[in-house]
Amino acid sequence: MRHLLDITDLSVEEIEELTRMAEDIAEHPQKYAESCRGKKLITLFFEPSTRTRMSFEAAMWELGGSVISCTDMSTSSVIKGETLADTMRVVANYADIVAMRHPYEGAAYVASLKSPVPVINAGDGGHCHPTQTLADLLTVHRELGTFDGLTVGLCGDLKYGRTVHSLINAMLRYKDVKFVLIAPEELKLPEYELDALKRAGAAYEEVRDLESAIPSLDVLYMTRVQRERFDDAAVYERVKDCYVLTKEKLSAAKQKMIVMHPLPRVNEISSDVDDDPRAAYFRQTMNGKLMRMALILKLLKEKDGAQPAGGKAWFVGGRCTNRKCITRLEKLPPLYTEENGVKKCAYCEAHENVRDKNEGK
Amino acid sequence: MRHLLDITDLSVEEIEELTRMAEDIAEHPQKYAESCRGKKLITLFFEPSTRTRMSFEAAMWELGGSVISCTDMSTSSVIKGETLADTMRVVANYADIVAMRHPYEGAAYVASLKSPVPVINAGDGGHCHPTQTLADLLTVHRELGTFDGLTVGLCGDLKYGRTVHSLINAMLRYKDVKFVLIAPEELKLPEYELDALKRAGAAYEEVRDLESAIPSLDVLYMTRVQRERFDDAAVYERVKDCYVLTKEKLSAAKQKMIVMHPLPRVNEISSDVDDDPRAAYFRQTMNGKLMRMALILKLLKEKDGAQPAGGKAWFVGGRCTNRKCITRLEKLPPLYTEENGVKKCAYCEAHENVRDKNEGK
Amino acid sequence: MRHLLDITDLSVEEIEELTRMAEDIAEHPQKYAESCRGKKLITLFFEPSTRTRMSFEAAMWELGGSVISCTDMSTSSVIKGETLADTMRVVANYADIVAMRHPYEGAAYVASLKSPVPVINAGDGGHCHPTQTLADLLTVHRELGTFDGLTVGLCGDLKYGRTVHSLINAMLRYKDVKFVLIAPEELKLPEYELDALKRAGAAYEEVRDLESAIPSLDVLYMTRVQRERFDDAAVYERVKDCYVLTKEKLSAAKQKMIVMHPLPRVNEISSDVDDDPRAAYFRQTMNGKLMRMALILKLLKEKDGAQPAGGKAWFVGGRCTNRKCITRLEKLPPLYTEENGVKKCAYCEAHENVRDKNEGK
Repeated sequence: MRHLLDITDLSVEEIEELTRMAEDIAEHPQKYAESCRGKKLITLFFEPSTRTRMSFEAAMWELGGSVISCTDMSTSSVIKGETLADTMRVVANYADIVAMRHPYEGAAYVASLKSPVPVINAGDGGHCHPTQTLADLLTVHRELGTFDGLTVGLCGDLKYGRTVHSLINAMLRYKDVKFVLIAPEELKLPEYELDALKRAGAAYEEVRDLESAIPSLDVLYMTRVQRERFDDAAVYERVKDCYVLTKEKLSAAKQKMIVMHPLPRVNEISSDVDDDPRAAYFRQTMNGKLMRMALILKLLKEKDGAQPAGGKAWFVGGRCTNRKCITRLEKLPPLYTEENGVKKCAYCEAHENVRDKNEGK
Repeated sequence: MRHLLDITDLSVEEIEELTRMAEDIAEHPQKYAESCRGKKLITLFFEPSTRTRMSFEAAMWELGGSVISCTDMSTSSVIKGETLADTMRVVANYADIVAMRHPYEGAAYVASLKSPVPVINAGDGGHCHPTQTLADLLTVHRELGTFDGLTVGLCGDLKYGRTVHSLINAMLRYKDVKFVLIAPEELKLPEYELDALKRAGAAYEEVRDLESAIPSLDVLYMTRVQRERFDDAAVYERVKDCYVLTKEKLSAAKQKMIVMHPLPRVNEISSDVDDDPRAAYFRQTMNGKLMRMALILKLLKEKDGAQPAGGKAWFVGGRCTNRKCITRLEKLPPLYTEENGVKKCAYCEAHENVRDKNEGK
Repeated sequence: MRHLLDITDLSVEEIEELTRMAEDIAEHPQKYAESCRGKKLITLFFEPSTRTRMSFEAAMWELGGSVISCTDMSTSSVIKGETLADTMRVVANYADIVAMRHPYEGAAYVASLKSPVPVINAGDGGHCHPTQTLADLLTVHRELGTFDGLTVGLCGDLKYGRTVHSLINAMLRYKDVKFVLIAPEELKLPEYELDALKRAGAAYEEVRDLESAIPSLDVLYMTRVQRERFDDAAVYERVKDCYVLTKEKLSAAKQKMIVMHPLPRVNEISSDVDDDPRAAYFRQTMNGKLMRMALILKLLKEKDGAQPAGGKAWFVGGRCTNRKCITRLEKLPPLYTEENGVKKCAYCEAHENVRDKNEGK
């Protein structure tokens, strides 16, 4: 059974295939209007995420399929102690494919292990959200025509932002991509992500200031800098404006640069930027729907394919340090992977030596 | 882009067009069973209103379209501080038309300003609920064959009932309509609504007693008299029975009079009235669905039409006094309209000099 | 109007008809893919029950119909004091058939009384859940090819389990069925259910121990033994393991025995049983969907048929002792039936002399 748990479950070739298909859907929607007739998607949401759910549901309707919405999973029999494995074996009787959202990290992986139908990870805590990354990739490709040779600026909270980490991991597989990491000291990209860049041989630089970085960029990916992330409120007050994109700052950018944002935004992009043709963030949500359509078609077609092993070599270890790891919710064998000498939890991919990122939550 | 925010956004001719279409749908449902194939409605509900939502969703299914239900908007990214304008630009990627319910007054208007798809106001606080009024109008027309020359009794809470105000504003545009306003002192029709009647040259009388008013009526529109509306409980106890419709009181009515009610009812119509052919309130809900079908068809067809300006001349004023005005939830420029020398908030239409109707809520 | 409130509303012949139809649907799903085109199901849920709702909704989609989900009924106008009778007359404008879930016992019956469309009871408190029993019956028939001559073991909580009582009442109508009642003293089958077995002339034995009972069984129906049911925790600790099905215990069973469970399970069946071909509990959920499909087809076809009276002779009595009886929520005439000298509430079927089973809830 083929699933999508993490963006790197898809090869570069598969991303290209999905991109082509999504672009074809955008051009010829009628061609796909009956592609999933008689098929059913269940959106199995253990926490609310209205726009992700809407995007999946719109995708399935536009393919001619049907949808069963489950936004009430947190009040359902999971309370009675049912395992995700059991839930999936039941749900598989009602759906051909499942999009699952869960507050615990690794939940989609655990769900996929026994699932008789494809599972799409629609977000598992702060861990992965691969269809957001697919939306990001399609946006880059539709707007700029290529993945190669781009200078990608990532601005704001690079420490906690899972969309940023996921986009980096997806983009570093392309030729001559350069990353400009624009963040305050408190929210710099974590060491293990920098290591991934180094291992891939990707060019990158770390800077503090958006304004000076902007002229070199082809893509500017904005994220929010939240007050809660700072121990010292005075530091936050001093730096915050630096990470807000205004019309003025945008005037220094290339004419073909694009501005992206995973949305919702609060004030990190001022609204006078919205009408600039470079503002791609609302088109990005449309691209999310198109990629979800392509993905649903691909997974339903490849139902009998094998899930790529991803080089995971399981071995028994201790208890995961991440308090939002699915192993804290369900009794599961403690499994770790080892890559470049670092152990990672096989479920939530928390690094052995990293302080619990969900501490205090 | 054409929206429906307030019943008076529709001209008398357009109401007639919708009425004709709804009556045709009732007679020939099969003709419309595929009219919206491939179209999607989102019910974007920021507060629950199950029956309104069901009516919209049933309407869209019967037109052959699809529905995405969003009843969880109050737990979604709005909490994170997203504006309605942003929400609509995202949602427009997932739907061809949106029915929106919101606890704040003026919310649907704000949503419509930037929306790339038609917005139907499915209730914004105590302000407008135009599809309820469409249901009421179709009921009058299907049951009595005309809007002209009718004597319309409105009974109960005429002070706070938005359905009553809306029906009056819709009906006073027809010829020779007479209004009989049946209410206790505490719940009389507000002064500004009486002014509207006077300006339109409509005949009306204010009375205290349902029993003596009933014989002259063609339409009796019932609403609930709630204990909470009275400062003095003794007054409530003394008057309440007067505003309850019983089989006995109904016996004095014309054979062709109709009884209407926006539902749900509690005890303001006793259940022994239900089987009387004059009891039109359950048929009224069916008419709501038919009018929503006609409206969806009309708005999708006229997507490129312009929203009628409604004679609104904006100018900057102070802060709206209504604590449920959408301007209290989002930062919006304070806009007022002026009509007949009275300033009204451009969002929620609260009158400048009227005490906050949502005080204490 | 024909409804399904209780499994015994269906005759033995009708169960056979539904079983045949469900088996035909399983074999030829394409034949039924358009059977309900243009029809709408409303899932009217006054309390969450995600998997029951999913099963009904999947059933309707697979028949080519549409679904309106109402999981928010508990926050809707019922709070405002609307009666179920009114709710149903409104809802009937939006649906061709309704599946209703309610925490109060007798609610589906009350809803059916005035409903212009068929009502399927999808669970009313601890009272009835007839489509679960249909799932159970189809499982027995598909797995074993017959209802006659079987030895049916029921294990665990036989006192409170409504699925167990309902299955017994359905199965005792077949030839030569023998029941083996496996339960701790605290959770034995109630006296009035034993009386039903005796009156039907069905063979049964009551035992304490699963292990010794297992070799004789054709069907083993497992339920959970909950700690809360025991006054004395020490007793629970002593007996609990006896009612857990393990691979080891299963080794003594017939090769053709089937293991059933209404799900969700916690630990009353250990997960190493899951891969045994006798483990029928996940197939049971699929059978639930198939029977719901057959039932929807049957009720829509027989819309104009009369509801079987079920021999109910109404007469006025006192107030029902069951605090979860729908008569505690709505003002309804107190009606009782009398059968074999025992009075039962006509709504929730609570026995006159039985202590309130919902006491303390």
